[in-house]
Amino acid sequence: MPYKAAKCQLIYKGFGLKIIIHQTHHKIADFKSIFKYLEENFKKPEKGIHIFPELFLTGYPLLDLCLQKPFVAKYQAFLEKLIHWSHSLPKDVYLLMGGLEYNLTQSGIPMTIKNVVFGVSNSFQGESLYAKKLLPNYDIFDEKKYFTKGREPQVIEVFDKKIGLLICEDMWASSFHDIDPVDDLQKFCQSREIQLDAVVNLSASPFIINKHKSRLERAVEISCLFQCPFIYVNRVGGEDEILFDGRSFAVDGERKLFEGKKFRGDILELDFPEKSQQYSTKPNSKSLTWEELFQARLNEEVQPAILRKWNNHECQEVLEALAFGFQEYASKNGFQKFTIALSGGMDSAMVLTIIKLSLKKGQSVEAIYMPSIHSSSLSYDLCFDLCQRLGVKLTTMPIKFLHSAAKNLFGQSFNDPFKGLSDENIQSRLRGVLLYGRTNQVNSMAVNTSNKSELAVGYSTQYGDSVGAISLLGDLYKSEVYALAHYINEFYQEPIPPKLIHRPPTAELRADQKDEDSLPPYAILDAILEGILSYRYSKEDLLQKGFDQEDIDKVFTLYARSEYKRYQFCPIIKISSKSFGFGYRIPLSSDKTFYNQSDQ
Amino acid sequence: MPYKAAKCQLIYKGFGLKIIIHQTHHKIADFKSIFKYLEENFKKPEKGIHIFPELFLTGYPLLDLCLQKPFVAKYQAFLEKLIHWSHSLPKDVYLLMGGLEYNLTQSGIPMTIKNVVFGVSNSFQGESLYAKKLLPNYDIFDEKKYFTKGREPQVIEVFDKKIGLLICEDMWASSFHDIDPVDDLQKFCQSREIQLDAVVNLSASPFIINKHKSRLERAVEISCLFQCPFIYVNRVGGEDEILFDGRSFAVDGERKLFEGKKFRGDILELDFPEKSQQYSTKPNSKSLTWEELFQARLNEEVQPAILRKWNNHECQEVLEALAFGFQEYASKNGFQKFTIALSGGMDSAMVLTIIKLSLKKGQSVEAIYMPSIHSSSLSYDLCFDLCQRLGVKLTTMPIKFLHSAAKNLFGQSFNDPFKGLSDENIQSRLRGVLLYGRTNQVNSMAVNTSNKSELAVGYSTQYGDSVGAISLLGDLYKSEVYALAHYINEFYQEPIPPKLIHRPPTAELRADQKDEDSLPPYAILDAILEGILSYRYSKEDLLQKGFDQEDIDKVFTLYARSEYKRYQFCPIIKISSKSFGFGYRIPLSSDKTFYNQSDQ
Repeated sequence: MPYKAAKCQLIYKGFGLKIIIHQTHHKIADFKSIFKYLEENFKKPEKGIHIFPELFLTGYPLLDLCLQKPFVAKYQAFLEKLIHWSHSLPKDVYLLMGGLEYNLTQSGIPMTIKNVVFGVSNSFQGESLYAKKLLPNYDIFDEKKYFTKGREPQVIEVFDKKIGLLICEDMWASSFHDIDPVDDLQKFCQSREIQLDAVVNLSASPFIINKHKSRLERAVEISCLFQCPFIYVNRVGGEDEILFDGRSFAVDGERKLFEGKKFRGDILELDFPEKSQQYSTKPNSKSLTWEELFQARLNEEVQPAILRKWNNHECQEVLEALAFGFQEYASKNGFQKFTIALSGGMDSAMVLTIIKLSLKKGQSVEAIYMPSIHSSSLSYDLCFDLCQRLGVKLTTMPIKFLHSAAKNLFGQSFNDPFKGLSDENIQSRLRGVLLYGRTNQVNSMAVNTSNKSELAVGYSTQYGDSVGAISLLGDLYKSEVYALAHYINEFYQEPIPPKLIHRPPTAELRADQKDEDSLPPYAILDAILEGILSYRYSKEDLLQKGFDQEDIDKVFTLYARSEYKRYQFCPIIKISSKSFGFGYRIPLSSDKTFYNQSDQ
Repeated sequence: MPYKAAKCQLIYKGFGLKIIIHQTHHKIADFKSIFKYLEENFKKPEKGIHIFPELFLTGYPLLDLCLQKPFVAKYQAFLEKLIHWSHSLPKDVYLLMGGLEYNLTQSGIPMTIKNVVFGVSNSFQGESLYAKKLLPNYDIFDEKKYFTKGREPQVIEVFDKKIGLLICEDMWASSFHDIDPVDDLQKFCQSREIQLDAVVNLSASPFIINKHKSRLERAVEISCLFQCPFIYVNRVGGEDEILFDGRSFAVDGERKLFEGKKFRGDILELDFPEKSQQYSTKPNSKSLTWEELFQARLNEEVQPAILRKWNNHECQEVLEALAFGFQEYASKNGFQKFTIALSGGMDSAMVLTIIKLSLKKGQSVEAIYMPSIHSSSLSYDLCFDLCQRLGVKLTTMPIKFLHSAAKNLFGQSFNDPFKGLSDENIQSRLRGVLLYGRTNQVNSMAVNTSNKSELAVGYSTQYGDSVGAISLLGDLYKSEVYALAHYINEFYQEPIPPKLIHRPPTAELRADQKDEDSLPPYAILDAILEGILSYRYSKEDLLQKGFDQEDIDKVFTLYARSEYKRYQFCPIIKISSKSFGFGYRIPLSSDKTFYNQSDQ
């Protein structure tokens, strides 16, 4: 039975048919800017099919915002405006836009919400074409909390071209789920004898290191399945922890037709891609949702070394991601000034370097160094050297006097001046006070300097060195911070003093302290942590991998008892499949003995 | 067609058939204690049917724990042990237990997880009887993230009695969902001509003020629908924010047969309830999930005054809930000592009072008062009076010297001593440092003293007065804290100085400061906030309710710009349907202008 999608049929009177990819970059719920974008870009629109990302009309992720009455009301009003606006569009322009479709109660409260594609032309009435079928609900994703899934595949016919529609996760097949939107679409086309001219996927796909490679591989697979080009449109933005990297693309079989910019808005225009007629025959692989790409890491057979060293390409990708995430958080929350507390160690030096390298016009960063009686002169020298190289103003605020004043106060009040851990923590917390005093004074933003290894074992002081508005390094193990430092020094004119990189890590909270006195060497610590977090290894698994029993026990103990520190931590820019933060949810008050081996 | 459930049929040889309710109280994942409980209570078990709560075998909520390999392995080993143990049970004992049923990959990773009822007898082989059908996924609930829903209703036949099974949310009908387990069970019984002898619901149902009344109402409805007793078993526990209050019960029609203790483990034994033969005919109401009870508040027609004053019964319930939640967090995280920072104001006085009233053997609480140059002598007098009344040791640690030392340091380092907000915040943060210095010194737990009104408008200093391991008052508006204070003073021998209650609220961070200089009066503020949070009102809605435009604008502005403070806040003991914390998820970096009225 031949298929005809009457609703969307338009007759194109131009010459070659164009595809225009709008790789957009808007703040969540910023309806004004979104509308302004449309007004500005459609004064004299390019004739053809304009494709926008998933939830272009609202931004993503919205979380509870999509349930709020003021948000819903504003969005509904915006949709009305969009409908009105669309009626002035020329006849030879067709827009595919991601948005929300609400079913509201009489009092304006959502009954159901669908994540949909709107087909916008000059006869647009506000009805959607297609609703997302595969709602991701793992790790950072909670789409089943908010959205109702779509049930039907969709092929639209625009300007004589037959286009299959998908939204983001829909492209990832699954053996875990009972839903496979690609498979459904294929069966739909087969049963109706439809030969597609393109498959289009509107996405809001979070950045993870090396994820883009998997997107391209899967795209080739889908292109070959349908024997037509596959067009992928992704949004751009940093939403607290989550980054959207853009890089919209099209492939036709193995051939990549174009790729959009990384971490930047972009508009791409191309002729409607001709079919290559050369498609390899590939089966629809069934283990490629992100959930399963994550699960697959747990499969003993496919498992490589636990923690692989980043190559230059990966270092560059991470550097761009962190700079972008930082800039997004800063601009969306209204900060132009930044204050970094330097310690003379690697992490704070790295944060300052990334910020300095990413500064935009009108922005400034300053550094403060807050030595205590345990701080070495080397630390000051390295901070000084770093700031010289970066051209950043450094202010020294010794905490010696405050520290001893606090100590005296305890002596007077409790007849018990603190020592040991209390004494270490108070130094770190006094630094937190001074850092935040400074941010209040000049209305700057404090950026956190903790790394993932510290966060995992609780090797930081709550309300002390763990403070900050956002964490740049919270998803990088210490050894990854070092890898990034070497890369930056090689390719960015050595902003970091080599001595600083080669110095053994120390918190300098007591005399002659070194991290490795309390922790296993970072190479081992980080591998064990990656085993626990990403591979969900048990102690037995790690023992089998050749790690030392004592190291394993120590790391598990430290990890299990520091949940409370992670609970109150700031948002962490996510670059890996498993980061601490929103997608990591462990109860604080549970019994922790189950981490011990089975006989214990 | 008459129905016979062969699998579970046992022949009871005793006299009257007993039902034994195990209202249990265990730490999450504490398999040792759970097994010990079984061993101790089944040495010479009461003959009859023993009923345990939902997920008795693991605890609830598990969040990501249920995905962790070490947890899964330990649980599977525990299940094996349970199977072995069950074979020594006498023939006339049958247990209904909540637990998890895993479908694992070869490498021990969960493919699917079901929240089930196990029927445990001496022939138990580890297979479940019933899987939960309605998986709550709103607010604090994320069950669709972890669990696969069950599809079939279940009636079992034990000792000649036919029992219909439900798990927690299953009992709440819904017009939003396409699933109604009660309706399904009824149709199942009708089609097979089954007349049930009881409906049993295994629950892990979080406490919310006044929720228990709704449970009982719905129970009567279900009992009447099936014309048989309804037995409800609930767990006990405080899991970070979420409290489980127990209060297991049975009803037969309108008649309540028994009710278990509140916030305490309990074992209840009764003869298998005879049918009353007097059931009113009630329809299966279709708007009673908790999701909808929450939604219903948004229905203009049923809406009462926004914020109703608590009666004595409600005050007592809240007081018990807070004391229980505090004790649970403390004991599960290994604290026996507590340190409270007193300000001379209502919130810290309330926190100290609740803790002191709830102290157990071996526990102790101390208070510290940290006056600055802006603190009045009245504040000290009130702290002194409070501690005298409560019998708590009070230590004064003036921050004047530290404060001026910090000020001098800024003067020296930046040639700019701070003033205004910077000066206010630094006092609050220095107090945080001293409070945490003290907790480190004596290994005590700092309890947060913020209330819900402050949290909502960001009227607190991050890392200052907002610190703490857990928040007792974070789900109480300021006016509710006052209501509780009046109640406590009336019924608990006036532990709080009346002068303290009648003093106008002040942060004392600058001269002559009063809260009402920066905020609307609390009665108005709290009503507007409840409108925003629980009713999801827009500005227009609140204007229609008669609030002042200026107050509304101010509250929305303060609310929208303080998300970052709430993000890093400690767990909040939840007592209302909408609290800040795990079930409240708003992006930090979104545009906030949509809160403004439509013409703006």
